[in-house]
Amino acid sequence: MSEITRRILSWYGSDNPGTLSKLAALMNHGRLAGTGRFVILPVDQGFEHGPARSFAPNPPAYDPSYHFQLALDAGCNAYAAPLGFLEAGAAEFAGEIPLILKLNNSDSLYSGADPCPAITGSVDDALRLGCSAIGYTIYPASAARNEMYGDLRELTQEAKRKGLAVVVWSYPRGSGIGKEGETAIDVVAYAAQIACQLGAHIVKVKPPTAHIEQAAAKKVYEKEKIPVGTFAERVKHVVQSAFGGRRIVIFSGGEAKDEDAIYDEIRGIRDGGGFGSIIGRNSFQRPKDVAVKFLQKVMDIYAGKVK
Amino acid sequence: MSEITRRILSWYGSDNPGTLSKLAALMNHGRLAGTGRFVILPVDQGFEHGPARSFAPNPPAYDPSYHFQLALDAGCNAYAAPLGFLEAGAAEFAGEIPLILKLNNSDSLYSGADPCPAITGSVDDALRLGCSAIGYTIYPASAARNEMYGDLRELTQEAKRKGLAVVVWSYPRGSGIGKEGETAIDVVAYAAQIACQLGAHIVKVKPPTAHIEQAAAKKVYEKEKIPVGTFAERVKHVVQSAFGGRRIVIFSGGEAKDEDAIYDEIRGIRDGGGFGSIIGRNSFQRPKDVAVKFLQKVMDIYAGKVK
Amino acid sequence: MSEITRRILSWYGSDNPGTLSKLAALMNHGRLAGTGRFVILPVDQGFEHGPARSFAPNPPAYDPSYHFQLALDAGCNAYAAPLGFLEAGAAEFAGEIPLILKLNNSDSLYSGADPCPAITGSVDDALRLGCSAIGYTIYPASAARNEMYGDLRELTQEAKRKGLAVVVWSYPRGSGIGKEGETAIDVVAYAAQIACQLGAHIVKVKPPTAHIEQAAAKKVYEKEKIPVGTFAERVKHVVQSAFGGRRIVIFSGGEAKDEDAIYDEIRGIRDGGGFGSIIGRNSFQRPKDVAVKFLQKVMDIYAGKVK
Amino acid sequence: MSEITRRILSWYGSDNPGTLSKLAALMNHGRLAGTGRFVILPVDQGFEHGPARSFAPNPPAYDPSYHFQLALDAGCNAYAAPLGFLEAGAAEFAGEIPLILKLNNSDSLYSGADPCPAITGSVDDALRLGCSAIGYTIYPASAARNEMYGDLRELTQEAKRKGLAVVVWSYPRGSGIGKEGETAIDVVAYAAQIACQLGAHIVKVKPPTAHIEQAAAKKVYEKEKIPVGTFAERVKHVVQSAFGGRRIVIFSGGEAKDEDAIYDEIRGIRDGGGFGSIIGRNSFQRPKDVAVKFLQKVMDIYAGKVK
Amino acid sequence: MSEITRRILSWYGSDNPGTLSKLAALMNHGRLAGTGRFVILPVDQGFEHGPARSFAPNPPAYDPSYHFQLALDAGCNAYAAPLGFLEAGAAEFAGEIPLILKLNNSDSLYSGADPCPAITGSVDDALRLGCSAIGYTIYPASAARNEMYGDLRELTQEAKRKGLAVVVWSYPRGSGIGKEGETAIDVVAYAAQIACQLGAHIVKVKPPTAHIEQAAAKKVYEKEKIPVGTFAERVKHVVQSAFGGRRIVIFSGGEAKDEDAIYDEIRGIRDGGGFGSIIGRNSFQRPKDVAVKFLQKVMDIYAGKVK
Repeated sequence: MSEITRRILSWYGSDNPGTLSKLAALMNHGRLAGTGRFVILPVDQGFEHGPARSFAPNPPAYDPSYHFQLALDAGCNAYAAPLGFLEAGAAEFAGEIPLILKLNNSDSLYSGADPCPAITGSVDDALRLGCSAIGYTIYPASAARNEMYGDLRELTQEAKRKGLAVVVWSYPRGSGIGKEGETAIDVVAYAAQIACQLGAHIVKVKPPTAHIEQAAAKKVYEKEKIPVGTFAERVKHVVQSAFGGRRIVIFSGGEAKDEDAIYDEIRGIRDGGGFGSIIGRNSFQRPKDVAVKFLQKVMDIYAGKVK
Repeated sequence: MSEITRRILSWYGSDNPGTLSKLAALMNHGRLAGTGRFVILPVDQGFEHGPARSFAPNPPAYDPSYHFQLALDAGCNAYAAPLGFLEAGAAEFAGEIPLILKLNNSDSLYSGADPCPAITGSVDDALRLGCSAIGYTIYPASAARNEMYGDLRELTQEAKRKGLAVVVWSYPRGSGIGKEGETAIDVVAYAAQIACQLGAHIVKVKPPTAHIEQAAAKKVYEKEKIPVGTFAERVKHVVQSAFGGRRIVIFSGGEAKDEDAIYDEIRGIRDGGGFGSIIGRNSFQRPKDVAVKFLQKVMDIYAGKVK
Repeated sequence: MSEITRRILSWYGSDNPGTLSKLAALMNHGRLAGTGRFVILPVDQGFEHGPARSFAPNPPAYDPSYHFQLALDAGCNAYAAPLGFLEAGAAEFAGEIPLILKLNNSDSLYSGADPCPAITGSVDDALRLGCSAIGYTIYPASAARNEMYGDLRELTQEAKRKGLAVVVWSYPRGSGIGKEGETAIDVVAYAAQIACQLGAHIVKVKPPTAHIEQAAAKKVYEKEKIPVGTFAERVKHVVQSAFGGRRIVIFSGGEAKDEDAIYDEIRGIRDGGGFGSIIGRNSFQRPKDVAVKFLQKVMDIYAGKVK
Repeated sequence: MSEITRRILSWYGSDNPGTLSKLAALMNHGRLAGTGRFVILPVDQGFEHGPARSFAPNPPAYDPSYHFQLALDAGCNAYAAPLGFLEAGAAEFAGEIPLILKLNNSDSLYSGADPCPAITGSVDDALRLGCSAIGYTIYPASAARNEMYGDLRELTQEAKRKGLAVVVWSYPRGSGIGKEGETAIDVVAYAAQIACQLGAHIVKVKPPTAHIEQAAAKKVYEKEKIPVGTFAERVKHVVQSAFGGRRIVIFSGGEAKDEDAIYDEIRGIRDGGGFGSIIGRNSFQRPKDVAVKFLQKVMDIYAGKVK
Repeated sequence: MSEITRRILSWYGSDNPGTLSKLAALMNHGRLAGTGRFVILPVDQGFEHGPARSFAPNPPAYDPSYHFQLALDAGCNAYAAPLGFLEAGAAEFAGEIPLILKLNNSDSLYSGADPCPAITGSVDDALRLGCSAIGYTIYPASAARNEMYGDLRELTQEAKRKGLAVVVWSYPRGSGIGKEGETAIDVVAYAAQIACQLGAHIVKVKPPTAHIEQAAAKKVYEKEKIPVGTFAERVKHVVQSAFGGRRIVIFSGGEAKDEDAIYDEIRGIRDGGGFGSIIGRNSFQRPKDVAVKFLQKVMDIYAGKVK
C-alpha cells in the first residue's frame, strides 16, 4: 500500500478494520490507485432529474450495465448509484469495481422550498450487493435538515459497525439560503464541516464561488483575510474546513459543460489540495469512448501526469 | 422455459432463486405463458372508488370469487387485489393462478391534494395467502412521496429476502404536477424510472400522452428530438426509461372505454415493446363472457395471433 | 384444477392458502399433474451414503444440475434434496419444477444404535430458494426420537405460517425395534400415523413386509383379521393408517433393483390406494435416457395408462 | 475479470452479489489472481497445537503481524486465522489482503474420542474486521458432528445474507472411523460432499491416500473401477465428489515435510484438477525468505509456469 | 501519555477508542502509572473459597469497602471483583480507581473433574458500575471448555462494542491434564495463547514451573532448545507465546507465601518481560499497613526503583 494511502487511513483511527479496508479499496482501485486521489462515477440523475434529461443525450446510458462498464473502462475508483441501478448489475459485475449505494434520493416531480430526499435503500442492501460504502445526501439550509441529519446518524452508526465506509453529499439548499448562497465559499466550507462532524469518511461538495453568503461569516473572512480569490484558494479553504485536511473532500462536476472548462476546474481542485471529483453528467452524457478519454485525462491531471 | 422468459429472468441477477421462481410463475401462467407478455387482472377499485362505482355495472363482481374465476377463465397471468378480496378466495382457488397482494390502498372518502395510500397488508400476509408478488402504489409528485418510498423500501427488502416479486404501480399525482401532467410522456417515463430505482421487478404506469409537463424536460425532448408523436413511440420511450428495457413495464387500462379503442392501445403497447397490460374496470365491469372474450383478444394481440 | 386434486386439498382445511397452493403446485406439475398421484425425485444419497456409492454408477449424476434436468425431463412432480444440491441449481432452474428442501440429513461416517440426523437447512432457506415444501426425516424407534419430533414441530409450525408444505420421511429405526421390524406392516403403518399426527402434509414410508413386529399389535391384527397378505393389502392398510386415507402417503423405492420388480411394486401401491413413489437410486443411478423411460413407465402405471 | 474466474462464479447462482464479490476478491488477489487457483495461508496452529509447537521452529512467527506480511510477500490469495490473530493485525494491514476469520477452533489441552471445536468468533466479527469469508471446521465421524453441522448451518445462513463467503475445513475424525480412515479416499471424497451439501463455497480437505475405509464404499469403488491408484486420480475423484467439480476444493499441506515431496503433491493436485492448497506449517515454520520462495514455487506449479 | 503506554496501545489497532481509553486508564492509574506495568488487586476468593478461608486471617477484609481502600492506598492499577463486592463500593469510590468486573465465578461447594464457572454478571453491569474492563475465567483442559470459550466470545464481542477492555484469567484445569500440568511451562504458554486468540486484551496466567506436560510439546522444546530453566526464562517464553509480546500478560500470586519468595518471583516476572501481577490473598490477608508496604515494594521492583 502506498505511503499516501496509508497516511489517509491513519486519519480514521476510530474506525474498525472493516471500514478501513473499504476506504482502502476505494483508494486502491482504478487508474488513480495509490495516489490518494479519486474520480468516482455517480449516476443518480435518472432518479433525481428523470430519465430523458439524464440519458437521452447518450441513449446507451439508459441501460444500467452501461455505467458499470464505463466506470471500469475509464478506471474510476468507484461507481455510485441508487438501489435499482446497482441491483441491475451487481451480480454481473461482482468484484470488478467498488460500489457505493446511494441510500437517499430526491426526484423532481415534487419540489418544495425545503428539500428532503426519501430513504431508498439500507445498510443491509449495501452488504447484500457487495458495496464498499453507503452514500447519503444532506441539504443543510433546508428546514428538514434535522430529519436528514438524524437518519444519517443512524445509518452511519450501522454502516460503521458493519465495516462499511460513509460518503456524504453535502449540498446546502433550502429556505435558509439564497440560490447564490448554495455555492458560496463560506457555505460550501460550512457544508464540508457539517458532513465531517456527522461522521462522514468522504465528503462531496460543490465547487465554491467567491461569493460569501452569510454576513457573520463575511466579517471574519475579511478580518482574517482568508484568501478565496482563485478557485484553487477556495478549494484549499474547503479542504482546510474539512478537519484541517484530515477528511477526504471531493468535488462534484455539476452541469455538463465543455471539456476545457472542466480540466481547468480539475487543476484548481488538484492545486488546492482537493482529493478528487465525482463526475456524473459530464461523463455518461458523452459517447462512451469520448467519456473514457475525458475521464482518463481528468485522472491524469490529478495524478500529475499532464499539466 | 422459453428463451424470452429466460432472458427476462437474466435481468434480475441480484435476486434469489425464490424471487426468480415467482417472476417465472407470473410469466408462465395463462394464455400468454412463455411469451414474455402479461395481462394481469387487478381489482382494487372496490377499495379505491367504492363498491357501487366499481361493481354495480356488473353485479356478480361484488363477489370476490368472481374475479378469481374471471382471471382464470380469461387466462390472465395473475390476479391482483387488496387483502380482503384475496382472503375471500385464496383457499378456494389455491394454486390455480398467481396472486399479487396489493399492500397499500387509498379510499376516496377522504382526499387531499397530496395523496398517500394506507398500508393494508404485509409481506407475511402474502406468504400466508400463497402470493407470488406484493403490489404497492407510489404517487410521485405528492408531498407525501417520501413516506411512500420509505415504506416501499422496507417492504421490498423483506419481500426479496422471502422470495417474492415486487410490482409497483407508479402514478404521479399530487401538488407537484397538474392533472394533465399525470399522464404526460416525460412524467410517465420518469415514474417508470423511479419505480425501477426503488427496486421494482415489474412496473405499472399509465398510458402516456404526448404532453410534456416539465419545462426542464421539454428542452431535452426537443433538443434530442425524442420521438413521442405516436402512442407506440411513447411506449417505447417509457420502456427505454425503465432501465433500457431491462425491467418489465406494463400499462394500465384506465377508465372504461370502448373495445376498439382499447385494442388500438394494446397494439401500441405491443409495437412499442411494452410487456403488457393490467386491465381492471374494462374487464370486470363487462358481463363475464364478454370480458373473457375481450381479454383473450387482448392477449392474442400481444401474442401476435391477431393484428 | 381436477376434481381429485381439489378433493385432496379439502383434507387440509386447517392450512392457509399459501400452504394449499404449494400442495396444489406439487400435484399439478409434470406427467402426473391433476391425477392426485406423485412421483418425486429425491437425491440426498450423496449426503447419506457418500458420493461414490451414490453417483459412481452414473457419473454425470455427480453434477447437481443433472438431477434438476432429470426430474424435469421425466416429468416428476418435484425434486427433493439437501441445501447444497438445491443451491447449486435453484437459480438456473428457477420456476421450472417444484422443489423440496430436505432440512435434516445423516451421513454414514458415524453411526450409532439410535440415529438422529443433523439439521442442515432452515425454512427461510426454503423461501430463499423458492421451494414448495420442506422435507424432514424422523426415525421413530430411535432413543433420539423426541429431539427429532421436537425439531420437526418447530419447523412445521414455521413452514405452515410461511405458506409451505411439509413432507415427512418416517423411517422407524433404532434400538426400539429390530432390523426386520423397520419394514414390518404394523411398524410402517404406525410410522405413517406418527408423521400425520406430527402435522405432515405428505408422508413417505418404506414398502411394508408382511412381518408384524410388535406383540401387542400382532394380537390385534390376528383378532381383527386385518388383511396384510398381499403387498396391495398392506399398502391399503398403511394408507388407512394415515388418517383413513386423508393424508398423502407415498412409498420409497429403496435399493436399486430390476425394473420389473419395481413395476410390480408400483402396481401394488396403485392398487392399494397409495399416492405414489419417491424414487432416488433407481432413477439417477441409471443412464438418463433409461431413467426417463423408466420413470415415465412408473408414472403411466400410476395414471392407469398401462397395466 | 478472467474467463475462468467468471465461470467459477457462475456455479454459485443462489448467492447474492455481496457473496459473489467476496469469492471474486479471493480469486483476484495475489500471484494466482485470475487463474482460478488458490494458495491460502492458514495460521490456527497456535490455538490448535500450542505456541511452541507452532512457532518455536521460526520464532518471528510468534508475532501475528508476521503472518499478514508473509501472506502478502508470497502473494497468497488470502490469510486465514482465528479472532485474536486477525484482531492483532487487521487495522495495520487493512485492505492489503483478503482475510478469512476461522469461527471455530480446538485446542489440544483437552481431547476426547469425538472432537468438537469451540465457536470462537462471529459473522459480525468478520464484518468488523473486514474479512471476505468465514472459515469453519467440521469433523464428520465425530459423535458431535450434528452440533457442528447445526452451528455451521446458522453461521452459513447469516454469512450469505451479509454478503460473505464460506470456507469449510472438512476433516473426518472421531469414533466413527479409524486413524487410517481419516485420509482414506472414500472418506475424503465423502467429506468434500458433506461440506458442499452444507452450503460451503470453498472446501478444504486432506490429501487422500489409496486406502478405502468403508466396506459399503469399497464394493462400489471396485465394481465401478473408480481409478484411485495415483494421487492425481484421487484428487480428481475428490473434485468430482464436490458437485462434479462445481465447488472449489483445496487441499491442506499437512505436517511439515521436505519441499520436493510437497512440490510433487502440488503437481498431483494440479493435474487432478484440484483448485489449490492451504499451506500452514510448511510455510510459516520456515524462515521467511525461504517460505516466500517456497510458496511462490508452489504457485508457479499451479499456474503452469514450472513443471 | 508515556511512550511505552502509547506503544502498548498501538498493539490493539482493531479496538475502538472507548476500549483503548479503558486500557489507557488501567495503565495510567496508581503508583505504576505510565510504566506499562501492572499490579492489580483481585478479590474473588470470598466467592471462590468461602468467606472464612478468605477473610478470617484479616477480619476487616470481610467489608467490601476495605478492598477499594486497600487498592487505592497501595496505588494499584485496578481492583477486580465479582458483582456483589463491586456493587457494595462502586458508588462510594466512584472515579477513584479503575474497576474490573469478574463476570464468571466458581464456588467450592460443588466441584467436579471438569470445572465450569457460573456467569455472575453482565457487560451492562460493568457499564452501570463504571468499570474499565470485564474479567472472565477460562479453564482450558476442562471438558466444559467450549462452553466457557463460547460464552467469553459473546461477552467479549459485546464489551468491545461498548468500549470496555477484556481481562481473561486463563487457568488450565480439568480432566485433560494432571495437577502438575496446570502450571507446566508448555501448558501456561498455551493458556496465554488461547486467551489471546479468544480476543483478550490482558491475560492472567499462573507462574509456570519447568515441568513440560504434553509429550508432543516436549519434543519441540527439546529440539528447539527453548530455554525454560529459570523462572525469568519461562516468563519470557510465556510473554512470547502471547502474540510475540504484543498482548499484556500478568501473573497471579497464587497461595499466600512469605514476602521474600514473592519479591523473587516479581523480579523474575520483571526480568522476563512480564507486565505485572495480580495479587489477592498475599495482600488482603495481611494487615492493611503491612499489605500496602508489601504491594508498594512489589511496584517498586517492577518500576526498577529497587532491585
